[in-house]
Amino acid sequence: MLKGKMVIGQSGGPTAVINQSLIGAILAAREQDVMTGILGARHGIAGIMSENFVDLTTQSVEQLEQVAHTPAAALGSVRLKPGPAECEKILDVFRKNDIRYFFYIGGNDSAETAYIISEMAKDANYNFCTMHIPKTIDNDLKVTDHCPGFASAARFVALAFIGDDRDNDALSGVKINVVMGRHAGFLTAASALARQADGDGPHLIYLPERVFDVERFIMDVHRVVSARGRCVIAVSEGVSDREGRPVASSKERDSHGNIQLSGTGSLGDALASRVKRAFKGENIRVRADTFGYLQRSYPTSVSLVDAREAREVGRTAVNHAAATGENGSVAIRRVSNVPYASEYFITPLASVARETTSIADAYINAEGNDISTRWLDYIRPLVGDLPVIGRL
Amino acid sequence: MLKGKMVIGQSGGPTAVINQSLIGAILAAREQDVMTGILGARHGIAGIMSENFVDLTTQSVEQLEQVAHTPAAALGSVRLKPGPAECEKILDVFRKNDIRYFFYIGGNDSAETAYIISEMAKDANYNFCTMHIPKTIDNDLKVTDHCPGFASAARFVALAFIGDDRDNDALSGVKINVVMGRHAGFLTAASALARQADGDGPHLIYLPERVFDVERFIMDVHRVVSARGRCVIAVSEGVSDREGRPVASSKERDSHGNIQLSGTGSLGDALASRVKRAFKGENIRVRADTFGYLQRSYPTSVSLVDAREAREVGRTAVNHAAATGENGSVAIRRVSNVPYASEYFITPLASVARETTSIADAYINAEGNDISTRWLDYIRPLVGDLPVIGRL
Repeated sequence: MLKGKMVIGQSGGPTAVINQSLIGAILAAREQDVMTGILGARHGIAGIMSENFVDLTTQSVEQLEQVAHTPAAALGSVRLKPGPAECEKILDVFRKNDIRYFFYIGGNDSAETAYIISEMAKDANYNFCTMHIPKTIDNDLKVTDHCPGFASAARFVALAFIGDDRDNDALSGVKINVVMGRHAGFLTAASALARQADGDGPHLIYLPERVFDVERFIMDVHRVVSARGRCVIAVSEGVSDREGRPVASSKERDSHGNIQLSGTGSLGDALASRVKRAFKGENIRVRADTFGYLQRSYPTSVSLVDAREAREVGRTAVNHAAATGENGSVAIRRVSNVPYASEYFITPLASVARETTSIADAYINAEGNDISTRWLDYIRPLVGDLPVIGRL
Repeated sequence: MLKGKMVIGQSGGPTAVINQSLIGAILAAREQDVMTGILGARHGIAGIMSENFVDLTTQSVEQLEQVAHTPAAALGSVRLKPGPAECEKILDVFRKNDIRYFFYIGGNDSAETAYIISEMAKDANYNFCTMHIPKTIDNDLKVTDHCPGFASAARFVALAFIGDDRDNDALSGVKINVVMGRHAGFLTAASALARQADGDGPHLIYLPERVFDVERFIMDVHRVVSARGRCVIAVSEGVSDREGRPVASSKERDSHGNIQLSGTGSLGDALASRVKRAFKGENIRVRADTFGYLQRSYPTSVSLVDAREAREVGRTAVNHAAATGENGSVAIRRVSNVPYASEYFITPLASVARETTSIADAYINAEGNDISTRWLDYIRPLVGDLPVIGRL
């Protein structure tokens, strides 16, 4: 039986429910006799190396629950891949503090870090258990049906499009909204949940999984504006042209020389500028918003399914580690869609480390400018009920 | 006794609660015998001129309540100041349809439109009553203590800063958030509500009521980063330099020639670029978000006080018109702060038309880079309780 302290850390971009996983793990660890201490590492492995720990055995459940309902990483986060020197240091700290369990909440990079550390411990014959606890608003981890953190970000995006589409319906025009997701279009595709009646936006959805052709985009916008007098567009920040160059930094798109295609608002502004040029002479309002960090941190738009599952993956990781002492990552299996039900299982660290997945072809329409209806079956139960739009 | 149909329209930028005012007015009008019909004008005075009306006597209360809880203008909105030809047309439509009451929900421009139409009716000896129903997220109408629509937008901003500040605390850096408000800083100042403990952001707040000096801004950021290792900044989209030129379009700021300071994300990107340059060599993350239209349209962050008051100003306008037949605009008087209580009164149309107000000097700190504590007393009861941040 592996006995010793456990350390937990958070890594990568925070989410609205990453603290649910943290608190799920802490509360489970408090029940485990094999875990002789519970340490929180400030800013992930950076905090391990500097022994910047928080004792997590003393807080009241009430305090922990308040943390669970607070967005972003309560322990602090980090983006750091450990090299040989860092691994050596981490192992020293583990030995010195009798740490036998390591839980790392994060995405594929964090899974890779967990994997590297687990391999290093094995090489050093240090008896040790490493668990990765999944988290990412990008929803791009392999093996799992979906990732904790995604559904809450998706809920924010869906709500934002519901409101913004009403706004655009009231004061017509072309509205471009740039959604997070550099390589995977899951979050941008969530915008489709805003549609409740014929004519509701978003009217066009562009994912990074398809080539973004600016000329075709302009044609699409023309078609929608002709038919409806307005057009709301969802576009992933990571859309790229035929040569794989991100539109947001492609010099070729900058034919007027007046737009620097880099920085946060630049993709939206560049596309808006293109649309304005294409509609020159026609009196149409063109606007762009970039949703930015609110998508992962807005506090009151959490999906209930997401909050519950984020808690459970944390709990499951600790209970699995205590019961088996074996490494792994927690994944979610969808058992039923109506009513929605899921279960948790353990997958090898290596199966989720490094590589990511992207949205399935079956979820994108043939033209590559919208989702397919099957996508809605996938995402609707995760995001939960949305407010019904009132109309006159 | 003035007897005839009433027409109601919505105008200017929508808000999350402008439909509350609409439904308040409709439900009140249904009780008034002097109002022989209730017409909704699609897209404000544009719909009056084209006689694009919705009959508002038939909808169920349930349907109306659903509309009341939906953001943006359910009748559609418009930005149009009527000239003599438009006024002639509008008067013709009123005569033809026996319209004797006109209710216009909007900001100072809409109040001006209502005023112009009321003067025109007087000149034409058309017995007629015009009421302006206040609405603006900018909170810049004269006479009233505050404007319906503002507190819900302020709530969105406060919530966004709560989440984003946690995000910045987890992954340190400089974060610039651009908030709506071209001439008035009320909404940007609402970001201060996000602070719950010492060290919480926003650490700097820049309003359009004070000169924005980029060099001083950089010094401020340096000071905060030195003290705290991070810096969250709220800046109004309308900040201007000493010559009164908006920073977002001032060529002088564009000393690298690579940033076009116009378009939606440009101010944030320009400031981020300046900060990056100032911190060159220091390994610090600099990001900018522009909150954009979500501030006025996000559906689930409505302030309860705001929703109630928006409903009441609509109701009050109709009841006043039916009882007196006199023109006016509804304003809000704050009766008590703890517990919060307000009442409604009528002010002349001319007193709110055209001109706007801005944030009081007493609400801005001496350095012009933050609010004063008195500001919090003003805004807190309007926005309501916010989620408590959990910490370890």
